[in-house]
Amino acid sequence: MTQKVVILSTGDELTTGKVVDTNSATIAAGLFSIGVQVAAVLKVGDDREKLLWALDQARELGDLIIGTGGLGPTADDLTTETVATFLGRKIEQDEEVAEALKKRFESRRLAWTLNNLKQAQFPQGAVIIPNPAGTAPGFRVSMGQNKTLIWLSGVPQEMTRMLQETVIPWIAQQTGAQQPFLSCTFKIHGLTESKLDEMLKTLDASPHAKLSFRAHYPDLSLRLIVNGGAEQESLFTDLRRQISEILGTHVYAQSDATLEEVVGQMLLERHYSLALAESCTGGYISHRVTRIAGSSAYYCGGAITYSNDAKIRFLGVKPETLEKHGAVSRETALEMSRGIRDKTGASIGLSVTGIAGPAGGSPEKPVGTVWISIDCDHCHEARLFQFHGDRERVIVGASQAALYWLRIQLLAQKD
Amino acid sequence: MTQKVVILSTGDELTTGKVVDTNSATIAAGLFSIGVQVAAVLKVGDDREKLLWALDQARELGDLIIGTGGLGPTADDLTTETVATFLGRKIEQDEEVAEALKKRFESRRLAWTLNNLKQAQFPQGAVIIPNPAGTAPGFRVSMGQNKTLIWLSGVPQEMTRMLQETVIPWIAQQTGAQQPFLSCTFKIHGLTESKLDEMLKTLDASPHAKLSFRAHYPDLSLRLIVNGGAEQESLFTDLRRQISEILGTHVYAQSDATLEEVVGQMLLERHYSLALAESCTGGYISHRVTRIAGSSAYYCGGAITYSNDAKIRFLGVKPETLEKHGAVSRETALEMSRGIRDKTGASIGLSVTGIAGPAGGSPEKPVGTVWISIDCDHCHEARLFQFHGDRERVIVGASQAALYWLRIQLLAQKD
Repeated sequence: MTQKVVILSTGDELTTGKVVDTNSATIAAGLFSIGVQVAAVLKVGDDREKLLWALDQARELGDLIIGTGGLGPTADDLTTETVATFLGRKIEQDEEVAEALKKRFESRRLAWTLNNLKQAQFPQGAVIIPNPAGTAPGFRVSMGQNKTLIWLSGVPQEMTRMLQETVIPWIAQQTGAQQPFLSCTFKIHGLTESKLDEMLKTLDASPHAKLSFRAHYPDLSLRLIVNGGAEQESLFTDLRRQISEILGTHVYAQSDATLEEVVGQMLLERHYSLALAESCTGGYISHRVTRIAGSSAYYCGGAITYSNDAKIRFLGVKPETLEKHGAVSRETALEMSRGIRDKTGASIGLSVTGIAGPAGGSPEKPVGTVWISIDCDHCHEARLFQFHGDRERVIVGASQAALYWLRIQLLAQKD
Repeated sequence: MTQKVVILSTGDELTTGKVVDTNSATIAAGLFSIGVQVAAVLKVGDDREKLLWALDQARELGDLIIGTGGLGPTADDLTTETVATFLGRKIEQDEEVAEALKKRFESRRLAWTLNNLKQAQFPQGAVIIPNPAGTAPGFRVSMGQNKTLIWLSGVPQEMTRMLQETVIPWIAQQTGAQQPFLSCTFKIHGLTESKLDEMLKTLDASPHAKLSFRAHYPDLSLRLIVNGGAEQESLFTDLRRQISEILGTHVYAQSDATLEEVVGQMLLERHYSLALAESCTGGYISHRVTRIAGSSAYYCGGAITYSNDAKIRFLGVKPETLEKHGAVSRETALEMSRGIRDKTGASIGLSVTGIAGPAGGSPEKPVGTVWISIDCDHCHEARLFQFHGDRERVIVGASQAALYWLRIQLLAQKD
């Protein structure tokens, strides 16, 4: 049985662009993991009529609707009521859920207000979907004609747990064996999309295989999908190996791993420690490194030396160097990486100094000029990079280039 | 003339959840700014048949379709071809665009490959939409019956410029005077959604006014919309004033400004400088502060002191303090904020030390325990916070709490 799934996101913030809809991407990823593809995603504003219209459209387009949002306690949370109207059912309060809600408020010492009871009300005949991370549970209800409606909290963290713990297992059970496929993601750095396409032209074509690209600055992902099960295993393995060989070190992961995860794992395996001296990236590299759980095992810490004075005090950069070559120079970058390593005793010091913009550029050193330096037992080197685009883009690009270069250094020190 | 706009996002990554679709939010925000609401957003995978199906659906649902993605040079970029098929038109190469493309490659010293010419091909009769930020231009083409199709690059940065510079002005001109409305966003910290709803119950109700909430951890936004033009100005002003009074300092902006923008502006106005000592937030606060253009005017820099050793060396925290009270304690937080201020000479030192998790918690200091301290001429204080959720959530929550407390401190020092 194949299911046509339609995702329905509600909320004025979605159709007025006030917030990015991460929920439909999370749901699509969850479904994809069990081989179910999404037919369409519909987004509609937070009002009764639009929601009714969308429910109608969605029921026409698909046989499983997964909706999110509008289950909260406030006046603009209209979902339960509207869904009940749409299905021609009454609303019932679930006393067990109501009790649990009150207890939750008590245990967190939050003031209980009556409007919270709205979150214990469901269309008649609905199966309640627990919300282990929040207050408003979701529900699953039949729409007749073998069609089902599932509704989840719109808060991304809550939605994700409801999806993983209840919805995905239920759908997997319903759909049984889906059309099988083999797939793999390559995370790529340092190639343009067209260059990548050109490089992969030599790949043996197969009607069963499909490549898709995704440019997500500063990264490029390539996804290989081979339709079929075990019988296509050798084709899949062969294509995967060919791609690996063609792209070489440009591939930093054959998974969804981020560059900071890959680098963190490498540091851990080699028993190295890292310290960072950031100027134009302003702490972003440090944030990327430390958002990985367990990073304290290899990350000593760092300095964000925005001013010259901070570069001198924290890193021991010589005032003469700053005066003669400027803060954005090979010399300063080298002294920064050496300085942070000396101060922290880390095995690797990494520094970044550049011009993030929009101000501060000059004809010799335009916005986007960035020096990156690595200092370790095997290397004391600085490299010049030129990034294009706005401040955010320069910061993100510089952080990626720094981590990528660190990876290449670590690869060379395998033994 | 009111337009029903349908946004069409393409790409396998959208229906398999590999990437979050920021484009449709950006387009919706742009349309909202000129008073045009989006009827629906449709997302479909990267293949001919699905795209044809989606185009068909979209034409049925709306009279203006704005699509993104699939205009690139690679084999899986199928948009132009599929749109031409859908409209029953031929594809033509635009020599001017082709020439510009070649020049762009030359000037950036990138290798020119023939597949790039795909980006100079458009359905016959299409009006080309320039792409000032990238290689693939978009196009606008009539679908008959007064319906129009607009297609833009899927790369967010490129799409945004094409939208702002060409598409929005064109739509604004087409739609003429839209139904007018007055609106305002309140950015709120420190209240739950149900508490907010409760507090606003006393607001004078009006059939012309609508409030909508958005919970986007760790923030809450409230949007007030009053339908009508100048004749509703006094109702709008009155409601806005009432909301301001009820919510008090919980409102940190009456705009879309971020907390780091608000705090940055306050530091600038008061001629204060800031230095940060971050432990569990790992550079995230520093990143938030420095992603604001011009932040070097008030941000000195900071230290990310992940290890005890770094706390001692960079901030002068006493080893006895760490031994007696631990790294996550009032005493350490106080020495950290004083230390970073001393080392940098900043007028305000802000420190954060806590347990981001998932490991490192204990019954006395569970994951999410965070001490924040401010040191300035008027204040040398530390406060204990307890955050719930995963590592990312603790980091984000702590950064928000720190910036919010800094704002409250700055408010008190108005004169």
